[in-house]
Amino acid sequence: MSSDQRLATESTDRSSLPDVPDETVKIAYIGGGAREWTPKLIGDLALSTGIRGEVALFDLDYEAAKRNAEFGNWVQERDDAVGDWTYNAVEERADALDGADFVILSTQFNPAETFVHDLRIPREYGIYGAVGATIGPGGIMRAMRTIPVYKEFGNAVREHCPDAWVFNYTNPLTWATRALYEAYPDINAIGLCHEVFHAQDMLANLVEEYMDVDEVDLDEIEINVKGINHYTWVDEARWRGVDLFELVDHHLEQEDAEREFTPEELEDVTPFVDNNQVTWELYRRFGILPAAGDRHLVEYGPWFIQGEMPDDLNRWGVKRTTADYRAKHWNPSESDQTTDVEAWMDGDAAFELEDSGEVAVEMMETLTVGGLMKTHVNLPNTGQMFDVEEGAVVETNAVLTADSVRPITAGKLPRQVRNQIRTHVNNHETLVEAANEGDVDLAFRAFLNDPQVKTLQTETAREMFAELIAAEREYLPDWDLEGSAVLAGSDAFDA
Amino acid sequence: MSSDQRLATESTDRSSLPDVPDETVKIAYIGGGAREWTPKLIGDLALSTGIRGEVALFDLDYEAAKRNAEFGNWVQERDDAVGDWTYNAVEERADALDGADFVILSTQFNPAETFVHDLRIPREYGIYGAVGATIGPGGIMRAMRTIPVYKEFGNAVREHCPDAWVFNYTNPLTWATRALYEAYPDINAIGLCHEVFHAQDMLANLVEEYMDVDEVDLDEIEINVKGINHYTWVDEARWRGVDLFELVDHHLEQEDAEREFTPEELEDVTPFVDNNQVTWELYRRFGILPAAGDRHLVEYGPWFIQGEMPDDLNRWGVKRTTADYRAKHWNPSESDQTTDVEAWMDGDAAFELEDSGEVAVEMMETLTVGGLMKTHVNLPNTGQMFDVEEGAVVETNAVLTADSVRPITAGKLPRQVRNQIRTHVNNHETLVEAANEGDVDLAFRAFLNDPQVKTLQTETAREMFAELIAAEREYLPDWDLEGSAVLAGSDAFDA
Amino acid sequence: MSSDQRLATESTDRSSLPDVPDETVKIAYIGGGAREWTPKLIGDLALSTGIRGEVALFDLDYEAAKRNAEFGNWVQERDDAVGDWTYNAVEERADALDGADFVILSTQFNPAETFVHDLRIPREYGIYGAVGATIGPGGIMRAMRTIPVYKEFGNAVREHCPDAWVFNYTNPLTWATRALYEAYPDINAIGLCHEVFHAQDMLANLVEEYMDVDEVDLDEIEINVKGINHYTWVDEARWRGVDLFELVDHHLEQEDAEREFTPEELEDVTPFVDNNQVTWELYRRFGILPAAGDRHLVEYGPWFIQGEMPDDLNRWGVKRTTADYRAKHWNPSESDQTTDVEAWMDGDAAFELEDSGEVAVEMMETLTVGGLMKTHVNLPNTGQMFDVEEGAVVETNAVLTADSVRPITAGKLPRQVRNQIRTHVNNHETLVEAANEGDVDLAFRAFLNDPQVKTLQTETAREMFAELIAAEREYLPDWDLEGSAVLAGSDAFDA
Amino acid sequence: MSSDQRLATESTDRSSLPDVPDETVKIAYIGGGAREWTPKLIGDLALSTGIRGEVALFDLDYEAAKRNAEFGNWVQERDDAVGDWTYNAVEERADALDGADFVILSTQFNPAETFVHDLRIPREYGIYGAVGATIGPGGIMRAMRTIPVYKEFGNAVREHCPDAWVFNYTNPLTWATRALYEAYPDINAIGLCHEVFHAQDMLANLVEEYMDVDEVDLDEIEINVKGINHYTWVDEARWRGVDLFELVDHHLEQEDAEREFTPEELEDVTPFVDNNQVTWELYRRFGILPAAGDRHLVEYGPWFIQGEMPDDLNRWGVKRTTADYRAKHWNPSESDQTTDVEAWMDGDAAFELEDSGEVAVEMMETLTVGGLMKTHVNLPNTGQMFDVEEGAVVETNAVLTADSVRPITAGKLPRQVRNQIRTHVNNHETLVEAANEGDVDLAFRAFLNDPQVKTLQTETAREMFAELIAAEREYLPDWDLEGSAVLAGSDAFDA
Repeated sequence: MSSDQRLATESTDRSSLPDVPDETVKIAYIGGGAREWTPKLIGDLALSTGIRGEVALFDLDYEAAKRNAEFGNWVQERDDAVGDWTYNAVEERADALDGADFVILSTQFNPAETFVHDLRIPREYGIYGAVGATIGPGGIMRAMRTIPVYKEFGNAVREHCPDAWVFNYTNPLTWATRALYEAYPDINAIGLCHEVFHAQDMLANLVEEYMDVDEVDLDEIEINVKGINHYTWVDEARWRGVDLFELVDHHLEQEDAEREFTPEELEDVTPFVDNNQVTWELYRRFGILPAAGDRHLVEYGPWFIQGEMPDDLNRWGVKRTTADYRAKHWNPSESDQTTDVEAWMDGDAAFELEDSGEVAVEMMETLTVGGLMKTHVNLPNTGQMFDVEEGAVVETNAVLTADSVRPITAGKLPRQVRNQIRTHVNNHETLVEAANEGDVDLAFRAFLNDPQVKTLQTETAREMFAELIAAEREYLPDWDLEGSAVLAGSDAFDA
Repeated sequence: MSSDQRLATESTDRSSLPDVPDETVKIAYIGGGAREWTPKLIGDLALSTGIRGEVALFDLDYEAAKRNAEFGNWVQERDDAVGDWTYNAVEERADALDGADFVILSTQFNPAETFVHDLRIPREYGIYGAVGATIGPGGIMRAMRTIPVYKEFGNAVREHCPDAWVFNYTNPLTWATRALYEAYPDINAIGLCHEVFHAQDMLANLVEEYMDVDEVDLDEIEINVKGINHYTWVDEARWRGVDLFELVDHHLEQEDAEREFTPEELEDVTPFVDNNQVTWELYRRFGILPAAGDRHLVEYGPWFIQGEMPDDLNRWGVKRTTADYRAKHWNPSESDQTTDVEAWMDGDAAFELEDSGEVAVEMMETLTVGGLMKTHVNLPNTGQMFDVEEGAVVETNAVLTADSVRPITAGKLPRQVRNQIRTHVNNHETLVEAANEGDVDLAFRAFLNDPQVKTLQTETAREMFAELIAAEREYLPDWDLEGSAVLAGSDAFDA
Repeated sequence: MSSDQRLATESTDRSSLPDVPDETVKIAYIGGGAREWTPKLIGDLALSTGIRGEVALFDLDYEAAKRNAEFGNWVQERDDAVGDWTYNAVEERADALDGADFVILSTQFNPAETFVHDLRIPREYGIYGAVGATIGPGGIMRAMRTIPVYKEFGNAVREHCPDAWVFNYTNPLTWATRALYEAYPDINAIGLCHEVFHAQDMLANLVEEYMDVDEVDLDEIEINVKGINHYTWVDEARWRGVDLFELVDHHLEQEDAEREFTPEELEDVTPFVDNNQVTWELYRRFGILPAAGDRHLVEYGPWFIQGEMPDDLNRWGVKRTTADYRAKHWNPSESDQTTDVEAWMDGDAAFELEDSGEVAVEMMETLTVGGLMKTHVNLPNTGQMFDVEEGAVVETNAVLTADSVRPITAGKLPRQVRNQIRTHVNNHETLVEAANEGDVDLAFRAFLNDPQVKTLQTETAREMFAELIAAEREYLPDWDLEGSAVLAGSDAFDA
Repeated sequence: MSSDQRLATESTDRSSLPDVPDETVKIAYIGGGAREWTPKLIGDLALSTGIRGEVALFDLDYEAAKRNAEFGNWVQERDDAVGDWTYNAVEERADALDGADFVILSTQFNPAETFVHDLRIPREYGIYGAVGATIGPGGIMRAMRTIPVYKEFGNAVREHCPDAWVFNYTNPLTWATRALYEAYPDINAIGLCHEVFHAQDMLANLVEEYMDVDEVDLDEIEINVKGINHYTWVDEARWRGVDLFELVDHHLEQEDAEREFTPEELEDVTPFVDNNQVTWELYRRFGILPAAGDRHLVEYGPWFIQGEMPDDLNRWGVKRTTADYRAKHWNPSESDQTTDVEAWMDGDAAFELEDSGEVAVEMMETLTVGGLMKTHVNLPNTGQMFDVEEGAVVETNAVLTADSVRPITAGKLPRQVRNQIRTHVNNHETLVEAANEGDVDLAFRAFLNDPQVKTLQTETAREMFAELIAAEREYLPDWDLEGSAVLAGSDAFDA
């Protein structure tokens, strides 16, 4: 680097100038008692040499956090743990956040109970939502529970670690991320989700199958991503410069792209099964490729979840996540969760230290020491989607460098898809505004505007809404239930 | 990569599917007779192993192109030329473009003559433009000469190599790039310029000086760039996560940041001298850091080039590029150009094969074989500048991957800077619209709106405009000079 | 008027300056054979002294036009006919348009047939559209028939009477009006509809009822109107400055505002019955008052027309317009049309010359001789709805003066209503774009995006679409039916 | 009015419903001691039968208010005073505002002193502003004095008469009006100014002159107005439907439209002289007609007020308003004010009751009892100027009805004019934002961005700014002068 054009520079006193930074960081994990995610992070950190430091685990279930902290330190003892990390479980959230460089948010409200309501009650009103985690009556309830909490998290970050990078994994991801920004507009928060990787995986499969290539690295599948979480779209896809839409179009001419499924065929598979038939159908319908799992996509298309059920949904190879399944999933003894830190530490099961495939640690490394990384993130719109309103949380690719995440411009959407995206953005913004005042009646406006609810008479929708609120009342302390005109006359709520 | 979630995939016929691409490319260089740029490219290609292929050089001066082709092939003979390239000079532009993967545009209209008019005539009207290459009366004249030619280039690309990546280096860069898109909206064209690198260089100097670091790599200076060519701005700057604005603010407290220069001090330096005093002044004035050489920046701030001249300009360490200097610069025998391919080939001078520091070859490699690269480019606005109109050519960072260049969102500008940017965008768009009809009177509206011209009475501006048009008449064949009401009554034009 | 501030004015030659205009006009009536509208216009003109002149009646049914022309001239003979008009039926449309100052457009494609398809076929697919004239499958079919014709009308106006004021009464009004502007962007066209007057009427009723006022003039009910035709909204309503929403809110507390109807109660009323129950329901749902007849409003709210039919629709006091009714309505002998020009002229019925209540003649007077008038119109958006895209045809108030119609700014809509408006705007724009290329597959995208269709599986919607197209094939000559991928595989279309 | 379509309506209790309003109003006049405006209003009210009531006059100079109140009641005694009004002078502003239906704002800060600074100091820096009331250094100083006061007025209106209609006549009109909305976004405030009437007057002159018409009523000159106060533009102008631009274009071919003036010719005329030469020049330059007095227009075009002064300004028939003239104008004994209420009441001069030509009373009548009226007003942008940012105060036509003022959409401006408008909007918004924090340094950003200041070096502009602030310090109590970095180092301010 040279500057021979400059005539002169004067020497100077250097006190109080910033120091050359090092790679030591503090990570705060809120919800750090998680049975599956925390062990994955522990493994990835143990394999990282780019950064090092301390991980503070906080969980309302302190014992769970403690167990994971023990596990983390246990892993550090291993010879193949090249990273340098210390784990602590803390009893106060503030202790986790103070001075943190990174904050991981992954929390749930008693999901074994709330998810059951979210799925069961709408089912009784004929709404056959497949997951209930993002939109639909269940998604909106979940948002009503979550937004006040995440606003509170936003305030806590401002107080304890205002410059920290916050990685939010909690659903409904858009609302939770939006709530963080509502509380603290300067927060460095991003919403992270895996669904888009499925699209890359699917496209990699097509390359392998139709181009006779052996192993395609997901990183090489370059896609232009845009939309909202769980309803993202791809209008450019390339592998080494090859336009993958040629492969997609070719694939759509094969029988496999029009396969129909029966309830019997799906009987023994998990609700996470993904046969891509919804993906192909949406591509045929809109001329642009969706990039999320089929079980999420169907929730956005009411035509998939109305009609004869379960046949008309199963036909697409998609299976509803039942309330019963949800209840079991969150009950460790009945769940098919695969991590078991106690067994590992006790030697009852063999633990292998391996890369989880998650990108969180790579992101932390890049944000700390620099370099260049591209991945998809959920962030307030600052132009990445020129045809969506400013500030709405959208999902697109972004570029990471040292202490910086900037969205990449993704361009516009076809009118019909944009129309749907904006419908949900209207609901996101309405619900956040409603939460600011605890205004249940305004929240009901968003509820009515949800495409799954939209076909119900107002009165019916109101009963369902009141019944959901009544069932989950204890998780809605920040909402003015008593002052609501919508709830006032409802039997379900009074009961 | 796995897909165990999918139930089945059917085998298929693979005819007519795309092949796995290789790294062989054809580069068309329009203006390939250049004495300085072409040898640099030849050197960089000789050092590249990422791509290989053919370079077709086209120049209105065929002999110059031929000389460079000979030189290119001569370089390939060297042992240290690890790249694999063949050079041809072609007599027809179409032969260069046909099947090209990359097109380099770097052309000038008889600059030894036109630049002299561009600088001399406004000078007589009291306009002391420092360069005359971007805006001001000279810049607008240059745009009027250039836009029709670049629209024609856009059409030629559509005809001969519609998918090629077009790298435009020609000034006025914004107008030339915008004209390519006007003619062929789906063109893959980017405008490339070095000025932003100066800002990175300047910031690297500050890191070295104030943080006691020895050698800072420009790539590590991460800046968020936004604006228009030669008037770009930086509102975030980091080195390994360190906020460089702390260093800038510290530097501004040093005497060096308020140094004033006299005409005598500048007497023997070239007009390319850059003392950063304009940069500091603009930062003080607007609270955001400009990222272009001071000689370009002053053109955008009429307050720098009005008053007592040359003193009031020289005070900032900036020297006007005189018409005389321009004339010599383009006359090889009088110029200080440093490349001399004849001497090298004849053995009269020692040629050393070394990296030029240009990023063009690295960009071509990424666009061809993939990877991830970030650099600043000039592209139509698709959201990278949310507060500037869609389609205006703006300069921001962008991400390159295989066959893709996507701008990174840069956010908004302070009102006062945005105001200036939009003023010029209005002129860019007006002049392109005027060129579509050859409408000189509409072009005059842009001329009047230029900040350098704005303080002149309409009548005076009209005389200057007419005089410029009269002097450069032969370079304006696509403009309807005879039909112009503005020119009609002017003595200068009739003469 | 004075100008004593000016120092001097010079006298001048006045040749070729415009003359003082007079009030003689030519009116071209396309669809002038209408049995109901033309006699009304004839009556209103006979009572007008503001303008005078000639009326040229053109109709594909020349005899009908001739009959109306005779009637017009017959009316002029009356003593109480104070206006001064001559009526001619013309055989060529060009003869009507040449030199026209006003063009009235009111046409239908063989409605007795097409309307029956529009209503019957969707009914078979479970879509219980109440009118089928605006949106829904029937509305979209009607738009597909109408857009090419109205583009052609736009071109004819440009050719024969480019400065004429065009009053379009034809449904689907938004699409027909938008098509005129698509063909001829400088056209002076406005779309005119009565539905908003119903809202004023309803509000006047409330004033009379709750404020003990005897006769409230509709002109005194000032409302701020915004939306799209047949789905307009009112957020400000005043009578002599009294906020009428106080009355509306009071009325909603009365039993009458929650009255439910049975199919039996509606058995003997016409489909035009309006009990305002949908109006109140939408006001409760969205917090803003709709301003269109209930039968139109229900089409925009799928929740009204799904469920148990006809009960769930009739409950709101709304009755479906059956295909059978439509067929009869357009068959004079079976219709309940009230005008009968033959009987009048023959003396078989008594004709009374009276003001029809229509505002067309008043508008023509204002546009010709000046004054100030306010009414609601459908016009491309130029800011009257700041939150809707530019150029979309929207319905708001406008101000008329001599030769000028300018929309009044109406402000924004609540998110949930805006969401619906934009959904339809997307469909309007998509269908116009599709019509430009005759692209049936793009039209199908709009069809799928219609809220009435949205809940159908793509495949089902495709069959309905194909069946409609097949039935109305002869009215779709400008669409590329053969090139459509959507139609290609459909049994309905092939049959 | 009929409602035979409705099946039934139920009778109801009518308590607490609004009453039929009457035409009695209370007018609060802030600045009611004015020597010229208050008597005019008193006269107009005395001639009005549309409304009646009470006028409360408040002025910091209580005696002046009292004198005007006496005069008002004296006028009411006359036989030809058909209106019914009572006048009171009040000592507390709150007493004037309480329960007011209309508030008139017309105030000045010791203009005899401040105006002199506003004009004199910039003059010393070479800025030859013609009026100094709107923009330029003087205009910005005036805005800095005025914004805090008008925010305070906005708060007072919210407290005492939240639904009142506020007519603001105070300059700088845009800033004062904008400040009212900043403090109280729901205020019913409009900014009113006479300049646009001059354009109508000028156009009426052309009709009389070139169309041989005797007396043209200003109301018949229909113009489409858009821009910002004192820099409004007209792109449509008609008299009885005749396009007046034909007359304008004809006039521009006459010698009178290119007349030049000498300082001698202007010696004895007032600074209010208007020869329209600037109007014609701007029309030639931009292709659109300005609608404000020439003395205001020149302030927006720096090219008019730079060069050889006063010749280069006088050439256009415009004369600078000197500081001396300003000082005299506000000193009754030296002023040429024409009203003299004492003389009238004492019988020393004959008072004639006649219509002043002002529209304020007509506006109050329409807002109170209804009807339809069109005039130009200054209001926050809600779409009337689609190409200007939302909320900026712009001047366009508006429609008045009972209790409602709604802007009429005015369409877009040519790029070069829009560019200027947006420049000033940026300054309006910056200064309001600065005032919110008392941030002098941000105000200086707006100061630097003013076109009159823009050509000065930052340092020079800073000295002028500091000198102005120092001179007017006592009128800037809400600004944080001590905390300003810009002022800190300035000799002028320290002195």
